[in-house]
Amino acid sequence: MQEPLSQPLADGAVTLDADRRRRCGYPEVVYGEGKSAETIAEILAAQLARGEQGLATRVAADAAERIALRLPSARYNALARTVRVAPEGSHPVERRGLVAVVTAGTTDLPVAEEAAETLDWMGAAVTRVNDVGVAGPHRLRERLADFESADAVVVVAGMEGALPSVLGGYVACPVIAVPTSVGYGANLGGMAALLSMLNSCASNVAVVNIDAGFKGGYLAGIIAARAAAR
Amino acid sequence: MQEPLSQPLADGAVTLDADRRRRCGYPEVVYGEGKSAETIAEILAAQLARGEQGLATRVAADAAERIALRLPSARYNALARTVRVAPEGSHPVERRGLVAVVTAGTTDLPVAEEAAETLDWMGAAVTRVNDVGVAGPHRLRERLADFESADAVVVVAGMEGALPSVLGGYVACPVIAVPTSVGYGANLGGMAALLSMLNSCASNVAVVNIDAGFKGGYLAGIIAARAAAR
Amino acid sequence: MQEPLSQPLADGAVTLDADRRRRCGYPEVVYGEGKSAETIAEILAAQLARGEQGLATRVAADAAERIALRLPSARYNALARTVRVAPEGSHPVERRGLVAVVTAGTTDLPVAEEAAETLDWMGAAVTRVNDVGVAGPHRLRERLADFESADAVVVVAGMEGALPSVLGGYVACPVIAVPTSVGYGANLGGMAALLSMLNSCASNVAVVNIDAGFKGGYLAGIIAARAAAR
Amino acid sequence: MQEPLSQPLADGAVTLDADRRRRCGYPEVVYGEGKSAETIAEILAAQLARGEQGLATRVAADAAERIALRLPSARYNALARTVRVAPEGSHPVERRGLVAVVTAGTTDLPVAEEAAETLDWMGAAVTRVNDVGVAGPHRLRERLADFESADAVVVVAGMEGALPSVLGGYVACPVIAVPTSVGYGANLGGMAALLSMLNSCASNVAVVNIDAGFKGGYLAGIIAARAAAR
Amino acid sequence: MQEPLSQPLADGAVTLDADRRRRCGYPEVVYGEGKSAETIAEILAAQLARGEQGLATRVAADAAERIALRLPSARYNALARTVRVAPEGSHPVERRGLVAVVTAGTTDLPVAEEAAETLDWMGAAVTRVNDVGVAGPHRLRERLADFESADAVVVVAGMEGALPSVLGGYVACPVIAVPTSVGYGANLGGMAALLSMLNSCASNVAVVNIDAGFKGGYLAGIIAARAAAR
Amino acid sequence: MQEPLSQPLADGAVTLDADRRRRCGYPEVVYGEGKSAETIAEILAAQLARGEQGLATRVAADAAERIALRLPSARYNALARTVRVAPEGSHPVERRGLVAVVTAGTTDLPVAEEAAETLDWMGAAVTRVNDVGVAGPHRLRERLADFESADAVVVVAGMEGALPSVLGGYVACPVIAVPTSVGYGANLGGMAALLSMLNSCASNVAVVNIDAGFKGGYLAGIIAARAAAR
Amino acid sequence: MQEPLSQPLADGAVTLDADRRRRCGYPEVVYGEGKSAETIAEILAAQLARGEQGLATRVAADAAERIALRLPSARYNALARTVRVAPEGSHPVERRGLVAVVTAGTTDLPVAEEAAETLDWMGAAVTRVNDVGVAGPHRLRERLADFESADAVVVVAGMEGALPSVLGGYVACPVIAVPTSVGYGANLGGMAALLSMLNSCASNVAVVNIDAGFKGGYLAGIIAARAAAR
Amino acid sequence: MQEPLSQPLADGAVTLDADRRRRCGYPEVVYGEGKSAETIAEILAAQLARGEQGLATRVAADAAERIALRLPSARYNALARTVRVAPEGSHPVERRGLVAVVTAGTTDLPVAEEAAETLDWMGAAVTRVNDVGVAGPHRLRERLADFESADAVVVVAGMEGALPSVLGGYVACPVIAVPTSVGYGANLGGMAALLSMLNSCASNVAVVNIDAGFKGGYLAGIIAARAAAR
Repeated sequence: MQEPLSQPLADGAVTLDADRRRRCGYPEVVYGEGKSAETIAEILAAQLARGEQGLATRVAADAAERIALRLPSARYNALARTVRVAPEGSHPVERRGLVAVVTAGTTDLPVAEEAAETLDWMGAAVTRVNDVGVAGPHRLRERLADFESADAVVVVAGMEGALPSVLGGYVACPVIAVPTSVGYGANLGGMAALLSMLNSCASNVAVVNIDAGFKGGYLAGIIAARAAAR
Repeated sequence: MQEPLSQPLADGAVTLDADRRRRCGYPEVVYGEGKSAETIAEILAAQLARGEQGLATRVAADAAERIALRLPSARYNALARTVRVAPEGSHPVERRGLVAVVTAGTTDLPVAEEAAETLDWMGAAVTRVNDVGVAGPHRLRERLADFESADAVVVVAGMEGALPSVLGGYVACPVIAVPTSVGYGANLGGMAALLSMLNSCASNVAVVNIDAGFKGGYLAGIIAARAAAR
Repeated sequence: MQEPLSQPLADGAVTLDADRRRRCGYPEVVYGEGKSAETIAEILAAQLARGEQGLATRVAADAAERIALRLPSARYNALARTVRVAPEGSHPVERRGLVAVVTAGTTDLPVAEEAAETLDWMGAAVTRVNDVGVAGPHRLRERLADFESADAVVVVAGMEGALPSVLGGYVACPVIAVPTSVGYGANLGGMAALLSMLNSCASNVAVVNIDAGFKGGYLAGIIAARAAAR
Repeated sequence: MQEPLSQPLADGAVTLDADRRRRCGYPEVVYGEGKSAETIAEILAAQLARGEQGLATRVAADAAERIALRLPSARYNALARTVRVAPEGSHPVERRGLVAVVTAGTTDLPVAEEAAETLDWMGAAVTRVNDVGVAGPHRLRERLADFESADAVVVVAGMEGALPSVLGGYVACPVIAVPTSVGYGANLGGMAALLSMLNSCASNVAVVNIDAGFKGGYLAGIIAARAAAR
Repeated sequence: MQEPLSQPLADGAVTLDADRRRRCGYPEVVYGEGKSAETIAEILAAQLARGEQGLATRVAADAAERIALRLPSARYNALARTVRVAPEGSHPVERRGLVAVVTAGTTDLPVAEEAAETLDWMGAAVTRVNDVGVAGPHRLRERLADFESADAVVVVAGMEGALPSVLGGYVACPVIAVPTSVGYGANLGGMAALLSMLNSCASNVAVVNIDAGFKGGYLAGIIAARAAAR
Repeated sequence: MQEPLSQPLADGAVTLDADRRRRCGYPEVVYGEGKSAETIAEILAAQLARGEQGLATRVAADAAERIALRLPSARYNALARTVRVAPEGSHPVERRGLVAVVTAGTTDLPVAEEAAETLDWMGAAVTRVNDVGVAGPHRLRERLADFESADAVVVVAGMEGALPSVLGGYVACPVIAVPTSVGYGANLGGMAALLSMLNSCASNVAVVNIDAGFKGGYLAGIIAARAAAR
Repeated sequence: MQEPLSQPLADGAVTLDADRRRRCGYPEVVYGEGKSAETIAEILAAQLARGEQGLATRVAADAAERIALRLPSARYNALARTVRVAPEGSHPVERRGLVAVVTAGTTDLPVAEEAAETLDWMGAAVTRVNDVGVAGPHRLRERLADFESADAVVVVAGMEGALPSVLGGYVACPVIAVPTSVGYGANLGGMAALLSMLNSCASNVAVVNIDAGFKGGYLAGIIAARAAAR
Repeated sequence: MQEPLSQPLADGAVTLDADRRRRCGYPEVVYGEGKSAETIAEILAAQLARGEQGLATRVAADAAERIALRLPSARYNALARTVRVAPEGSHPVERRGLVAVVTAGTTDLPVAEEAAETLDWMGAAVTRVNDVGVAGPHRLRERLADFESADAVVVVAGMEGALPSVLGGYVACPVIAVPTSVGYGANLGGMAALLSMLNSCASNVAVVNIDAGFKGGYLAGIIAARAAAR
């Protein structure tokens, strides 16, 4: 008998995409914003029951505590605001591919951490390079060796969003640019950085949504996993 | 003696990035908008002299004719508005990786063609799937087999820009979304499609600028080349 | 003697449209935002006195409690944030027409609930289909049977707002798209979803304001009521 | 043998949605913008061959002439910029439902004409009411009798877009508001009218894209057809 | 000796425009936003000392209390958020001109109250007409007699901002339109109403900033004062 | 027998507001944009037949020529792009009120001319003050005497739109600010000047749409006419 | 041995630009927004250890208190929200150049104070001129003598942002315009003032970001320092 | 007898700021956009008559030819679109200060040329550095020596506008950033580059309007002239 592709949960409000791991290589990730701790816990529990490792993003600290009451093995990363669960006895994921996660300034760290946590969940090795924004131009060059072998780079930057363009000129691999809402005034909640990145003159720069650390990490992760099998 | 990394051309107005092929794997591509036919021809000639295959984008038909006067071997793709040159006797590039280029509607074709031409220049094999926008939902599903083995997908769509989100749900590989300025009214010159794609709920969708067929193709090309070596 | 068409209330600040039920088929609905609990209660009381069933939207929980002190029969829906009152002894409304209310994600539920509550007040039968966003494309198809007999569909979606376009391709009846402010970054408080829906390539998709669950429900309700008489 | 749901045309660039008439009640309508006269003619010819009545919108006068060379029976409406074809010997469509098409000013006429032509193609009876914008408030009231029996109203207005709100207060049926790009300065190509209509305080007003006469007509048409069976 | 035209106050941070009453007919009005209660009180005290009647706008309730500690005669209007002071023994201002202040909905009341308070301070007679938005079209017509003799009308409206256009069609005098930030979603903090009013097809509608009750009242006041002398 | 309030013209496309002169003091003004010369001429002819003096705005030179073929007495102002007609033997209008029309730069002249022509048609006396933008601050002060007796001032300015704020500080009468689309880059087609004027710190500045010379003149005209009767 | 140009701090999250004083003349300034008090203190301590005078901006009062626990000599300016530290025994900086800091209104003071504090840290002499916005035009002229000898002027203004344009017409030196987010409604968080300043018709006006008091001061400081050596 | 500060020209439409050279150090510059060739010529002739060297910007080629008919000594720069005139026998201006004018790409050349021509007219020495955008990062570093002694740098860049931020990190002098409208799609006519530059993390970057080559040059010119006197 064929297993249904979707699994309704919690009084009909959630329809779990049970087929995603087969179709896309990774289970569904729970976007925590606007979901109650109980709903998040229920989804993660369902994933555990299916033998999947679960990841939830955008989880506030108090919600994480309530999730831990139901799923004691849940691990919370307060900076990234992520929760992860793994079936008991599950082996660590084998590392597949290397991704550099780079920030322009210290205020970009939470978004970068969300990307890094996502990559770790996907099994990618992660190199972190922090606070190398373009106003101190030598800082980036001093760290270039750290990118050389990367299969993909995630660049997290707010304000003028120039870092991906500059970094893109140094490397051959794909660069996933994540604009952040860091800044003030005419940064328009990150739109200035976003527009700057979309208009990048570097050919290898693709862009995701403002503060979208998860998506930036996920894209770099699937690119690296495919490249890593070389 | 070390070769200089950049090469000034044409009375100082152009500084060719002579080091790019070594650094990034492909020579510099000429963005033709706002450049005279003569400037474009001079850059392509310099690339030929270095033994590089050249690509120029956004070249109007009359400019292409003037380029051909100087470089008779130049090949013009009128739909893509690209010019390509190759050193005499250069072998066809070996195919590396497979990329699907998908359009939502017939008006998206020129941008898709620019992406496809770029991919061909990079040595990727290209599968074309046209006119499978979401309003006729079965059209995409009937063509899914064409994507299954792709290393990356370029999705070109205007209007509401929904196609990358839908397609992203069917495949595991990276999807590069290229919004087009096709539409009218509140499409705001492609901004509606761009915003839609940036907000995609599909995790594997990255975005490039509006009408940026070249960049969409280039990103898919470097992803596919790395994955193809598996 | 002709009855006046409008009825001033509460020290002149409110002018009740007393003629609306005759003109439009339903009494005036109270938009609660920015009105005090006392004002809302007074309007509902005036409607009860006229023998009308009343509906107030955008009512906060504490305001609802204060309303209930004056109108003990008032029924509060905390998710939808609506208050309803009915004259004592009034019969349940006869069901007229069938409307499907569909959400893309769990965070769209409150807006969908406002639409559903409005439809129930109007006497429409309501089918709920939740969490069938486009990133899990089979989820929508598995539920298509639930729409087949609907006279109208209300689709509530945030983020990229692609669901109405996809759903519109499957059905022949009118689709009322309600964008929500769910999302972050370049979703611009729901503008991304709104623009996406306005640019929908599906011919049967009309749009209402961001988070406008009431209006989405109301429009579907009057369409269904007229169609239902078939 | 099952007929395929989609039919590739013209060297792969067009994929006709051959199943649409069964699924949605009407054949696919050709959006002419950005399509060559030859492509439009080919699609219409394919529809004729299937026994369908065809409609193409946004067709320039010179394109229409080239279409007529291939399909001599094609009928062009120069104000609406539409082309229609009907299989030889096909009967006039039976009238189903009544729709009023209302304009605020004379400059809104082309968009209204596109809506009216669409409605006529769908078989709806159409009442035209022109130039009744709100600055001359009695003009609308003098024509109210013309709307009384309508199953739906299409309101076409540019500038401040106030007409749908005012008209919506007089009628009980659904109002489809079509903003136009008529105006100047801060009308922002129709965005001012669009935003005004989306924020309408009238509950029965739904909105479509700027200058979207076809979609406004189509929605009114399917609403009227369903209501007309009463 | 000539009196200086400006008077520095409070450690140099405020420069009172002491010449304004002579130049413009009314003393300077204190914009309270971002000023401390102490600064506001100091300015009002200086005006009192010059024998002027003072008006401060955008004053929060707690600031008003602190102002009253220093200026016991200060009168606070909590809805309008204004403070007024008058020199002891000053006569009531002679009424000059008649202005109607009209609101579309109850949520527009605070802005209208700021306008009305300003007009009273200027000596204009004020007629209030509330809650006559366009969705109940007869409500405005039933009150038209109240405007007939007005020298100017202030119309305060949020949401779609249609009321000034409709009202402007009924009267010959200048209409000052004040958009409010009332609404949600695509009202963009009042920008939708503002744009609608700017694009009004009524020739006699001028516009001021969003929520600018004071300015709306002030303009109507100077227009009425000049007309009233007839 | 009561005369109808509106008069349908030209195959139903135009509905003349025949009651406007009684209601508003002046006949309807023809907005020429998007109307054919024939339609404009027909409306003006109908007004002449009613004994009204007519004014049409936004009339291109070639349309004016075609209008003159039908109405030889029509007078065209090429800078203002207006057409005026007057019944034979009609007396010049008696001057009522004085309005100053002020421009910031020479490129603002066409909009100012439209305002001045409107004022002349209304019977106001007009004083012109040109090219007194704020970058040469003494230029405005040298001309202040020209405003002293004005009943209203129309200020036409593009670029940063600062002139109304500065001028508003010098005069007591109402200032109607007309932003123009003069400028480039971040002037956004006049939006920069418009926003500047809306945020003016001068209390006596009201704003009309970008390039709205007619409306600026009309508002000043009705203010001046009322004040002039003093 | 060459000193490294950058100095990693605090578990890798901060990379101090240790070379900046040599390269740019002044040490790096700490942007406090989004940094913990501990991180700010650590950076300032590292600068002290290098013998540099440190400046941190955008520091909240409670963070300043926590910084003072570690660096007792830190001096907090509560209005400017800046923290400064100086090595023990360091001499006061020699004054270099004169800068005027001018505000339009009292609400612009905090931003102006940030500029003035920055200038003081750089060693510039500062003249303050407050509350001379354009609505009281004589206020600016009465203070012109205070600017005559300035090497640069920083103008801080919100609302319509007209002051830099007017002031720029009076002086020959560079004017650095700092828009503030002061205002409401269509000021769009300072965008109206920013656009106005960018479109200034005065040739000597350059612009920095909204509320960017530090950058405004810094630019004026380096201009003045270079001019002062005359 | 005191000379008047302003000089009316050409039937009152132009008011020359005759006092500007005394007040600001340089005569008024003619902004050619929207002015007829005749008006431009008249202003330049008046300046010549006063012994001033004149500069007009934004002059089209055909207008320049008509100007040359009246002022044969006028010199046209077709790339910069500037016209210059000098009184017969006037000496070349003495060089004061050194400014580098830097472009990101070849399409930025016309705006840079306008800046350079302005600087030459002001008497500054100019160094040109072209096509050193950030995608080829070594290109800028190879040219750094050319900036070392500059008193100010003008950076002209479109697309993502990152160059000023990167360059600003290398130099100590003020950087005037000029965004250009070069690019496509989400560059929004130069707004993306403008926002990027305003949000620059480099402290020494000030911004002028999009394509404002003249203003960029002028500001750098007055900064350099003051610094050069050292």
